[in-house]
Amino acid sequence: MGSHPLTKVRVIGSGLIGTSIALGLVQKGVMVQMVDADLNAQALATDLVGGVEIIEPELVIFALPTPLLPLVIGREFELNPNSTFMDVGSVKAEVLQHIEAISGLATKFLPTHPMAGRELGGARAARADLFQGRSWVLTPDAATDPAAKSLVLQLISMLGAVAIELSAADHDSAVARVSHLPQIVASLMAKQLIGAAPEWMELAGPGLRDTTRIAASDEGLWKEIIYANRSEISQLLIQLETDLKLMIQSLAEPAAIAALLAAGRTGRALIPGKHGGVAREYTYLPIVIDDKPGQLAAIFNECAVMNVNVEDLSIEHSPGQLSALITLALSEGDAGKLADHLSSIGWNVHPIRN
Amino acid sequence: MGSHPLTKVRVIGSGLIGTSIALGLVQKGVMVQMVDADLNAQALATDLVGGVEIIEPELVIFALPTPLLPLVIGREFELNPNSTFMDVGSVKAEVLQHIEAISGLATKFLPTHPMAGRELGGARAARADLFQGRSWVLTPDAATDPAAKSLVLQLISMLGAVAIELSAADHDSAVARVSHLPQIVASLMAKQLIGAAPEWMELAGPGLRDTTRIAASDEGLWKEIIYANRSEISQLLIQLETDLKLMIQSLAEPAAIAALLAAGRTGRALIPGKHGGVAREYTYLPIVIDDKPGQLAAIFNECAVMNVNVEDLSIEHSPGQLSALITLALSEGDAGKLADHLSSIGWNVHPIRN
Repeated sequence: MGSHPLTKVRVIGSGLIGTSIALGLVQKGVMVQMVDADLNAQALATDLVGGVEIIEPELVIFALPTPLLPLVIGREFELNPNSTFMDVGSVKAEVLQHIEAISGLATKFLPTHPMAGRELGGARAARADLFQGRSWVLTPDAATDPAAKSLVLQLISMLGAVAIELSAADHDSAVARVSHLPQIVASLMAKQLIGAAPEWMELAGPGLRDTTRIAASDEGLWKEIIYANRSEISQLLIQLETDLKLMIQSLAEPAAIAALLAAGRTGRALIPGKHGGVAREYTYLPIVIDDKPGQLAAIFNECAVMNVNVEDLSIEHSPGQLSALITLALSEGDAGKLADHLSSIGWNVHPIRN
Repeated sequence: MGSHPLTKVRVIGSGLIGTSIALGLVQKGVMVQMVDADLNAQALATDLVGGVEIIEPELVIFALPTPLLPLVIGREFELNPNSTFMDVGSVKAEVLQHIEAISGLATKFLPTHPMAGRELGGARAARADLFQGRSWVLTPDAATDPAAKSLVLQLISMLGAVAIELSAADHDSAVARVSHLPQIVASLMAKQLIGAAPEWMELAGPGLRDTTRIAASDEGLWKEIIYANRSEISQLLIQLETDLKLMIQSLAEPAAIAALLAAGRTGRALIPGKHGGVAREYTYLPIVIDDKPGQLAAIFNECAVMNVNVEDLSIEHSPGQLSALITLALSEGDAGKLADHLSSIGWNVHPIRN
């Protein structure tokens, strides 16, 4: 692995992902050429990245919507017969079809999918650190040239991401469940709010907000992803429909409702926690603060003084109130230590006594 | 309003809500008696609260599961014929039936529902400030004695909550949409994760986490709430089923997928933002920090120095990484000011240039 150093990369597509990859590579000393059918976009990305013209790139990266791949893939293979190729699309089944359509390409084309994105698109939103610490799936198969795989692993590592190998089919099943289904569910849930009286919405709490947060996503992007992975998604939606029917039939039986909710709790517990492990149990420390600058700083100063590591936190403002509730997620030991310390210096701390 | 000062309150039920109400009232100088069928629970709550024995309470609060109300409501009315009564249950239709079963009670019993709770139950988890800044629905009707309503409003105000008047039917419709439906949707979504390969779960991102967060809730509590409000919930689930079917049928048509997702975005935008207004547009400022104590403190110090008010924030740790991404939600002006300042002193800030 790593016997061919990565020095020259050609990036086809000057959107968020392509430009972010390029920015990250250039920071590591790799020469990058930005290519885009839209010459203005190409010029902008080239400027942002410090792109150069290169010949014989070791790696050609397709960073454009998968349906557009057939327009460029053949020509790029012709131009760069000795290069390795990769894409970054959200669904892999379709990519495989495009690769197989071109004789000789399968061994040198490695489909990949970086698990990173932003709420904004375009080269302007690109960041060199977009992939830092993110998972980056690669889906090699028995035909994949080991040297091609090694080159792609090198790129993933350079960009600070964590490589995960899956089959293309497993990838598509996995993202259907952990990404595409949640998007559809959040959108359909949020759709049910249409027509509610505005004053009813005053009763909305964090549960509704969290459950529908990603319903604010851009439908233009998502319609293509969902369409591309529709066979996997369809199976999941049909299973969800079965469960939804069962819930409707169970509404007059508390025990049956509880059984469905308990299954949900079981499913929820399968999601790994931060730092990649199984979900850690944090202790939550609620603190009531004045909703004004300086309060959070003061609390985090005390955390630093006590050498306490804040794993997560939430801030809840209340309608019509000038106070806010901040809840820190801490290890149990840190929570006890910090609660005692903050209380002793007059903070309004509410440790959970259990 | 407020012509009868609240001085003596009898709380039936020593769980989280009853004990939290009592704690809050005692802090305001009100005498409170805790009553519970479980004498150990009663003794514990009395100790926690500083409960006393009182006669002729102005207000009797039923803070117990609504199905248990018929066991105590008649006797309490007999014992306290001059008192005002209220409950705190999550669904109001059922309470009305229990009230109407007792002649003469309807004018003096005001159904209410504080929009507050915790992931923990019981007197030990009680907090005097549980209702601070929360909405507290009351559902008076034409028969309600104005003096009874005035007393309940006094209590809500003493506990720092914000009173919202709705009809009982509107209340039940509202909570079905903003609370019960999200719970069911989150649970059914999380249930779909059962059976997924553990390595697939490594691809889970914040979208899945948020969408399923409340699926971790206690099914014992929720089965009763859902059961009690089943007629409202049933209508919503049937509408959701229709939309889900439509999505399944739309999977081969990107434009139809987009239309459903767009409706979700419209629904999401109806949720009021913090501070009770329509959702505010924040500017998000991402900052990459070392994942160690002192970093957050340092950032919030700079916020205080610059007089910048942080509206919300999220921390994202990456698997296997020692850095974390903190994203601050700020006003546009504050975001620009802070980004410039932090960059100038060497922080790894990534303002969104749009």
